[in-house]
Amino acid sequence: MARRVAVIGAGSSGLTCIKCCLEEGLEPVCFESSDDIGGLWRFKEIPEPERSSTYRSLVTNTSKEMMCFSDLPMPAHFPNFMHNSQLLQYLQLYAAHFNLLQHIHFQTTVLSVKQSPDFACSGQWEVLTEDRDGLKKIHIFDAVLVCTGHYTKPVMPLKDFPGFETFKGEYCHSSEYKDPEPYKGKKVVVVGIGNSGADIAVELSRVAKKTFVSTRQGAWVIRRTSHKGCPFDITAFTRLLDLQGLLLPRRLINWVSERELNQKYDHRLYGLMPKHRLFDQIPVINDDLPACILLGVVVMKPHIQEFQGSTVAFVNGTKEEQIDAVVFCTGYNCSFPFLTASVFTGPGHNLNLYKHIFPPSLEHPTLAIIGLIEPWGPIMPMAEMQARWATQVITGMSVLPPSLSCLPSRFPSPKHGNLLVEYIPYMDELANELGVRPNILRLLLTDPRLGFWVLFGPFTPCQYRLRGPGKWAGARNAILTVWDRVSQPMMTRVVPEPRPSRLPKLLVLSILLVAAIYPVLKLYTF
Amino acid sequence: MARRVAVIGAGSSGLTCIKCCLEEGLEPVCFESSDDIGGLWRFKEIPEPERSSTYRSLVTNTSKEMMCFSDLPMPAHFPNFMHNSQLLQYLQLYAAHFNLLQHIHFQTTVLSVKQSPDFACSGQWEVLTEDRDGLKKIHIFDAVLVCTGHYTKPVMPLKDFPGFETFKGEYCHSSEYKDPEPYKGKKVVVVGIGNSGADIAVELSRVAKKTFVSTRQGAWVIRRTSHKGCPFDITAFTRLLDLQGLLLPRRLINWVSERELNQKYDHRLYGLMPKHRLFDQIPVINDDLPACILLGVVVMKPHIQEFQGSTVAFVNGTKEEQIDAVVFCTGYNCSFPFLTASVFTGPGHNLNLYKHIFPPSLEHPTLAIIGLIEPWGPIMPMAEMQARWATQVITGMSVLPPSLSCLPSRFPSPKHGNLLVEYIPYMDELANELGVRPNILRLLLTDPRLGFWVLFGPFTPCQYRLRGPGKWAGARNAILTVWDRVSQPMMTRVVPEPRPSRLPKLLVLSILLVAAIYPVLKLYTF
Repeated sequence: MARRVAVIGAGSSGLTCIKCCLEEGLEPVCFESSDDIGGLWRFKEIPEPERSSTYRSLVTNTSKEMMCFSDLPMPAHFPNFMHNSQLLQYLQLYAAHFNLLQHIHFQTTVLSVKQSPDFACSGQWEVLTEDRDGLKKIHIFDAVLVCTGHYTKPVMPLKDFPGFETFKGEYCHSSEYKDPEPYKGKKVVVVGIGNSGADIAVELSRVAKKTFVSTRQGAWVIRRTSHKGCPFDITAFTRLLDLQGLLLPRRLINWVSERELNQKYDHRLYGLMPKHRLFDQIPVINDDLPACILLGVVVMKPHIQEFQGSTVAFVNGTKEEQIDAVVFCTGYNCSFPFLTASVFTGPGHNLNLYKHIFPPSLEHPTLAIIGLIEPWGPIMPMAEMQARWATQVITGMSVLPPSLSCLPSRFPSPKHGNLLVEYIPYMDELANELGVRPNILRLLLTDPRLGFWVLFGPFTPCQYRLRGPGKWAGARNAILTVWDRVSQPMMTRVVPEPRPSRLPKLLVLSILLVAAIYPVLKLYTF
Repeated sequence: MARRVAVIGAGSSGLTCIKCCLEEGLEPVCFESSDDIGGLWRFKEIPEPERSSTYRSLVTNTSKEMMCFSDLPMPAHFPNFMHNSQLLQYLQLYAAHFNLLQHIHFQTTVLSVKQSPDFACSGQWEVLTEDRDGLKKIHIFDAVLVCTGHYTKPVMPLKDFPGFETFKGEYCHSSEYKDPEPYKGKKVVVVGIGNSGADIAVELSRVAKKTFVSTRQGAWVIRRTSHKGCPFDITAFTRLLDLQGLLLPRRLINWVSERELNQKYDHRLYGLMPKHRLFDQIPVINDDLPACILLGVVVMKPHIQEFQGSTVAFVNGTKEEQIDAVVFCTGYNCSFPFLTASVFTGPGHNLNLYKHIFPPSLEHPTLAIIGLIEPWGPIMPMAEMQARWATQVITGMSVLPPSLSCLPSRFPSPKHGNLLVEYIPYMDELANELGVRPNILRLLLTDPRLGFWVLFGPFTPCQYRLRGPGKWAGARNAILTVWDRVSQPMMTRVVPEPRPSRLPKLLVLSILLVAAIYPVLKLYTF
């Protein structure tokens, strides 16, 4: 009989877990507390407790070619960065394509996951669920994949703000924020400048009387539109650059990249300057924030010192009066209420997981946490890779070392340190375990065009479907046609290229001249 | 007795005309048909016929230091690009500072401006006005300054769209567009991609179901945030660059600048590619449009072939169905209903004015059109310079040549050719007539710091207050403190500079290393 695996949650991680179980001959049983798939990416008009909740305008901050699952590129006509409703559409496509829905029990909440009495011998788990009618049921599973994400428990550190009890205006956590309309004509302080903070501040600034963003840390802000207007991650994530990152000192890479970024908008001038280095924390992806700051509709502020009624005092001595509302974009904590604490060695963000997946204290690696990472890169293909490996570990195809040592993070950030992951090295690390890491040297020799794209082109997840278990025949073509799918949604007004000049001699002369004086000409910068 | 001058309109051009009249010892009488100053910059909830009208969110597309009048820099705390309400505030400051309001007759419409019977001898004009009570009155003036702008007569070329009569959705001209709310959830086609078209499309895209921008011509789109996040015009308008433009072939300058711009977002990929060269027409200034195209919320389309009911067919063969609304951002025509046609040699956009100011057919240069230009640069200081010169011509301080020949425009654009003006050369040309053009060589020798700023720094209008008539004692300081006023509104979260490194030797070595490999490192582009 196939081994039965409980998958908790039917968001993007849960869906790929079901699919990986099926691929490995396991029998997945997915419990989803809501009535539909999509998790975070299914917009809810009203926030629900213990469930991730986003604002209506949320757009992906990695591009479609980089964030898709490795064996199903997004439809060519999809835009490069998608509204949450479009990403949900993709998840529905994925579920339909791989026939995943039949394995999901909707409106069924997992109340507890406990090691079975004979765990030491069987490695099995007792899963207690409650369905829509309140019926409770105990299931025995050979393994459990936890896919509940880490956006479920909002952090609202009101105690850190002296005098907040005197503030009589409205306030909420970003997870409760849906639309800007209620803030029309108001003076709003947004606390925190993560991706939500920046998005919400920009959106508020279009209707609010004034929008302040208070941040202790600051942030590096990257536009989605990068070199020549390509999605930033298409150019930022390549194996060549990753190699560079391994060969050169981290400080140097940071210094050069920060300098390039400051050429676009000086983070010091714009009041964004963070204390951390660019690659030491995940950046803020936002196209509109710089212009909002330049136009003065978003005003950057340092940390809040205290609230004095409707007046907010900041640590630089400035005060803003008649503040009507505060939106706390202060992030989330991990929360697994159904798991006993003994599973983890540390609480909250100090989760210590072997390769960010397996709790090292368990005798059997039959419980895995999928998608509990904060990568400098797209989370979906990483969760998929985790699921591919975790299911192989469950089947015994892949074997863990006897002692699971959790290496300290390379990242200096104290808060998120254990969740931060470097995209390409981590993918390659898991791919090595799975035996699906592309052999670039061999590719360059046997299929130079493909090898070239794998080495120099965008680092798309399809690279891990070229060989080994889970090999997909469409992978080669998917890699070679990335650019077609990137450009297609924009090819809506094609202007023919001008005819080549008929004066090649004059052209050569001009080129020489231009090359000589180009640096001076470049002064025209827009 | 002082010569009396009629100023028609109390918008930005009208205000500076009143001020220049006062400076030259003339007696200005300004007629303003509405009940307040500001013209275009005074937002009206409901559009009024024969009066310029904008959308609520309109922001200036030149920065405060470049667009201010030459002897009154904008307040330091103003943002670099201002909401229309803030620019109106500046105009109110200007009017108050120079005591202009007392010269304005509000709610008084000019019905006709005719040459007086003895015009050949006196050069006088008969101005017929109607006040709020319907009382008509004829005034005799020694001169007339027309400051009614060129945004009064919307162009809506419905006949150019076959089948438009079958379209049953809503439609309007951009001058009637105020807010995006009425378009919530609708499919909208924006026709035309001038500055209004781009602004409106971006704004609609945030609430509409889908927003299409149909353009025959295309456009070059420039962000307000330029090098290091400075306002684009601070770096784009300098005397040094202007000199370059005079010395090098126009095609070369265009080619290099277009190339630089395409590095930010490839206009071909983004469906924006125009047929004209960058400096041959005024560009579109927009920060948000590129991201909107990348996110697929604004879809670029070519010209409309025809309407088929609610379906819109484009010339590339594509069709978009169930279009709910069309916003025609198809510009304006000049209209001077109060002037007899004989004043001009050509109608509409074919106005032929001597130095863009004086109708050449008149025997006496006692009628001037102020602000009737479409500059690649800020219009307000140019209108001021025109007013300074026109008032000197009226007083006789400056004398026009006996035959006013209107040179053909350098710009190849057929439609706007006669309104397009090159900023710095035009300013210098008029400044020469006035005797206020700064002598840079002399400045460099006598006041090197100032000379350096005038030559290499932002080309601010204050440069024309350093010498000659209208010299302003504050000009030198205003030029040297430009950067303070640019940065001040953004200095809201100042992060101290890091301490200099203590390892100078290591630093030098690193610099050498970095210089050697920098081009490769730069591959990290965001």
